[in-house]
Amino acid sequence: MEIAVSRNILARNEALAEGNRARLADKSVFALDVLASPGAGKTTTILATIAALRERYRIAVIEGDIASKVDAEKVKEHGIPAVQINTGGACHLEADMISRAFDALPLDDLDLVIIENVGNLVCPTEFDLGQGARIVVLSVPEGDDKPLKYPGIFAMAEAVLLNKVDAAGFFDFDEAAFTDSVRRLNGTAPIFRMSAKTGEGVADWAEWLAARIEAFRAG
Amino acid sequence: MEIAVSRNILARNEALAEGNRARLADKSVFALDVLASPGAGKTTTILATIAALRERYRIAVIEGDIASKVDAEKVKEHGIPAVQINTGGACHLEADMISRAFDALPLDDLDLVIIENVGNLVCPTEFDLGQGARIVVLSVPEGDDKPLKYPGIFAMAEAVLLNKVDAAGFFDFDEAAFTDSVRRLNGTAPIFRMSAKTGEGVADWAEWLAARIEAFRAG
Repeated sequence: MEIAVSRNILARNEALAEGNRARLADKSVFALDVLASPGAGKTTTILATIAALRERYRIAVIEGDIASKVDAEKVKEHGIPAVQINTGGACHLEADMISRAFDALPLDDLDLVIIENVGNLVCPTEFDLGQGARIVVLSVPEGDDKPLKYPGIFAMAEAVLLNKVDAAGFFDFDEAAFTDSVRRLNGTAPIFRMSAKTGEGVADWAEWLAARIEAFRAG
Repeated sequence: MEIAVSRNILARNEALAEGNRARLADKSVFALDVLASPGAGKTTTILATIAALRERYRIAVIEGDIASKVDAEKVKEHGIPAVQINTGGACHLEADMISRAFDALPLDDLDLVIIENVGNLVCPTEFDLGQGARIVVLSVPEGDDKPLKYPGIFAMAEAVLLNKVDAAGFFDFDEAAFTDSVRRLNGTAPIFRMSAKTGEGVADWAEWLAARIEAFRAG
């Protein structure tokens, strides 16, 4: 019974996600879904990505949180359109929430929508949003063992951003062990060392994203 | 339909949690449920707590993770009995998992069982495990805005541990704003500033826990 209902929820979400995907294709808008723990630096990473790419692309942001609108406000301060979704308890965004957020964005005048999912390394992985790519951000203070403990998200990510590398001297983080753990789960995702705060490594990540956007636009 | 099933799941969990609670009362064993994001320092905090209290209490640990057994192995290295639960995808522990873990522990020879829940600020709050107290650990690198974004867990916690305060100089963490946000959600929970790594502040937290254990034993 639980399993049947759960499958229904996922099947309904998948149908709505495909609707989002078709709508994005029609408008030629690329959507990036950003997954991470609470406090990994998702918002700062998104702001650094915007700074790197805003001359080339018209960008908007969808912020997902259980509660509060602090992240959308931070993004708007930079002159970027932002929609805040409050899930009211749910630990992940769903495709219908994204569909309604699209209604509130000027899709005709955008090239890239960055979606900040709820801070959670587990729940969001099950819910396709219709995105063009999905990435995971892990920060150095969280520890190098996280791919062992949360394998699903590292297996599905199309890129892995290792954030807060400027704090590496302060924490015991074994980068070789981390890379090895990611590689066992995911043979293809590039791993970008970066600090969204200092800007280190942001350019490489932004170029990867730009290449994905160009490939999407080329069909 | 979804809501009805979800209520069934929670009602069944609650009944099993009450069974766990009765079993712990019968054996005079206090159970502490530790909630936090991935990488907040739950395991290090548990090890520091064990170091502070192992002369006074006989302690065991139940480790909850989606996958891997690295945390149970770390605890066992300190000569403490540990049971690893792998949820296989679920983002929280449930009372029946804890009941089976109790079967694998020498409850007659224990005073305190520390339960490390899955790293997640959302899902575990819904599932009572039969614990005597539930606490949340937040680490400085995660940011001072987390109570705004994850209010449920801060509202229900009986104590709040602010971990990694030794890294405070490295991150922009507004402790006054954090304390204020916690206080709006929770008028009673003490907030302990600590660093599980350096040991700073651990004694105060451990004394609070010891007082809770003594109150439990006094009935």
